[in-house]
Amino acid sequence: MFGFTYYAPTKVVFGKDAEQQVGKLVAGFGAKRVLIHYGGRSALRSGLIDRVKAALDAEGIFHVELGGVVPNPHLSKVREGVSLAKENGIDFLLAVGGGSVIDSAKAIAYALADPERDVWELFLRQRRAAGCLPIGCVLTIAAAGSEMSNSCVITNEQTGEKRSYNDDIARPRFAVMDPALTCTLPDYQTEAGCADIMMHTMERYFTQGGNMELTDEIAEALLRTVMKHAEILHEHPDCYESRAEVMWASSLAHNDLTGCGNDGGDFATHLLEHELGGMFDVTHGAGLTALWPSWARYVYRDCLPRFVRYAEKVMGVQDQGQGNEQIALEGIARMEAFYRRIGMPVNMRELGIEPTEEQIQAMTRSCAAAAGGKKGSAKVLYPEDMAAIYRMAR
Amino acid sequence: MFGFTYYAPTKVVFGKDAEQQVGKLVAGFGAKRVLIHYGGRSALRSGLIDRVKAALDAEGIFHVELGGVVPNPHLSKVREGVSLAKENGIDFLLAVGGGSVIDSAKAIAYALADPERDVWELFLRQRRAAGCLPIGCVLTIAAAGSEMSNSCVITNEQTGEKRSYNDDIARPRFAVMDPALTCTLPDYQTEAGCADIMMHTMERYFTQGGNMELTDEIAEALLRTVMKHAEILHEHPDCYESRAEVMWASSLAHNDLTGCGNDGGDFATHLLEHELGGMFDVTHGAGLTALWPSWARYVYRDCLPRFVRYAEKVMGVQDQGQGNEQIALEGIARMEAFYRRIGMPVNMRELGIEPTEEQIQAMTRSCAAAAGGKKGSAKVLYPEDMAAIYRMAR
Repeated sequence: MFGFTYYAPTKVVFGKDAEQQVGKLVAGFGAKRVLIHYGGRSALRSGLIDRVKAALDAEGIFHVELGGVVPNPHLSKVREGVSLAKENGIDFLLAVGGGSVIDSAKAIAYALADPERDVWELFLRQRRAAGCLPIGCVLTIAAAGSEMSNSCVITNEQTGEKRSYNDDIARPRFAVMDPALTCTLPDYQTEAGCADIMMHTMERYFTQGGNMELTDEIAEALLRTVMKHAEILHEHPDCYESRAEVMWASSLAHNDLTGCGNDGGDFATHLLEHELGGMFDVTHGAGLTALWPSWARYVYRDCLPRFVRYAEKVMGVQDQGQGNEQIALEGIARMEAFYRRIGMPVNMRELGIEPTEEQIQAMTRSCAAAAGGKKGSAKVLYPEDMAAIYRMAR
Repeated sequence: MFGFTYYAPTKVVFGKDAEQQVGKLVAGFGAKRVLIHYGGRSALRSGLIDRVKAALDAEGIFHVELGGVVPNPHLSKVREGVSLAKENGIDFLLAVGGGSVIDSAKAIAYALADPERDVWELFLRQRRAAGCLPIGCVLTIAAAGSEMSNSCVITNEQTGEKRSYNDDIARPRFAVMDPALTCTLPDYQTEAGCADIMMHTMERYFTQGGNMELTDEIAEALLRTVMKHAEILHEHPDCYESRAEVMWASSLAHNDLTGCGNDGGDFATHLLEHELGGMFDVTHGAGLTALWPSWARYVYRDCLPRFVRYAEKVMGVQDQGQGNEQIALEGIARMEAFYRRIGMPVNMRELGIEPTEEQIQAMTRSCAAAAGGKKGSAKVLYPEDMAAIYRMAR
């Protein structure tokens, strides 16, 4: 195994009506002037934004709000948030939403801590962040894990670039998680979220050595749990217990717990998906499931022991003398069947997009540029590999 | 399941030679004057204290040192540390050791933040702490989990009381974990540590409802992993990989991860052991294994579903129609056999103590007083139950 740093300082307040504590939590960090950042109208219609405002009012905390964050959140919205926050002397970012809203808040927080420079430079890897305003969040969808993670993904809608920037200083100070808030999510969003959660752990699982047994066991535990409850939620979307299992898994899948001791993980599927997201504006979790089976079949021979372990420990494949390659392939096939059962696409056609060869070439170029030429651990992918996987996934 | 707060802000730096980073870590928290707190001569003889001092010197950080912390750390040593720290204007506590040293440092840190009042009042539950100086640690034994936990256990050697106080403000700012530092530990210390690690998770596992499936799965993963590597270390004490598995498990077993969603846990075995530790100064982990089989056989009928799950998922008992009670008892018997295989006592005689009926009565009175009259979740124990378990464990 490799040495590692583990740092997950976010205070999690989990359970029914947890959002009522948001005012006290913000006050506990000494904040006085809050920007409430959110996405679409559902947060307004459900009364959640009003409840959050009431909780802040009760502590005498000033607030302004900015909604309209979209999935694959836009750089232009980040810039709008920065302007509004500067005008109002904001000292705390409160994200009410899922990964897109939290990531948008993180980008605003980076910008405010270094107001003279363009925040997009971080995402272009031109410099490291000088600081970050404190962030808190009220989670409304279990998926991205941004509520405890150091990651932030923003799309420059003018260039079509979807880029990430990771820094521990952006980990939220607190995350309020009320599973009941997710009970009304559409099935597609729920299941795309489950797919994203699982992928955050799978990206850390499929590596070339360096694995720690405790980490592997925890990762497998998480994957089995999310699969089980994703299927329950497909039939019974209002099951609070399953919503809670999946919500807590979203945080643990991406706060680095499932990567301790590994080599940093693979993350090629995420990289490939970012280009889909940038070019076609697909739902992130669905983009991942549309690519993963092709990625897995392209790379499994180079990482056979891990695929065999995955097949046996997570997908329940039994060794009946069929050989490791067949065990691995059966594990991939069962994963694909699981995706289908929860209504997720397993190729790009099912995702509703049919990229031309020119578009595949363009995504490959952008992918390679974002990764500095190559990406992956299970198998290191070069541009020709990336293009081959895109073609397999059509 | 129940709602919960999860807060594990400790920055973990894990791996070979991690202690070299201790100077930079202390400096990162803005500290200037450090009290290095440690236990016996092994930390000196091994050169670890010198390496820690060199790392602090390299950052220009002033330091004084105080060794001599014993297992079941004494209140008198805490008071000695408080005096020394006051004389030297200490602003950071650096614990180099295991749970006893870290707990002693936590008690000193509480005292320094509120210098006019007696710190023992916290342990007598007479008040809450007003503050706590920042603490960091260099871990030298995997056991107590104090490196990420909010708990602190001190023995008042004048009264024989061993008492705990828990507060999130005492969670260490950082924990440096180099598994290689534990490779020379005596087998008994290693295995008592493994027993303690497992018990921290078992205390959270054996509860009446409120359990979360993800938490259960993670707990079971941790228990299986520690059992496996405890047996490896019994034969091959210098196996770095096994030392690393056990060390990381020590933190995860007691940073509350394995209790998320439960009712707060049982912790009766810990309570019963504290009285053994206070009266006979036994090794904590060994005291736990000497009591657990008796506790388990006393309570299992009241918490049968958990004992059955434990038997099947952790101890590998197969359901062959023998009935739940037999499955549960077989799980307990296998646990007892595991303790024997790693050289741990399964009753007080094997622990080397034979308490008289008067001593059992005294421990029971103290136990009940510490718990406010009753304790436990798997089965709520009243004084007569506590005495009965002590008698069973003789």
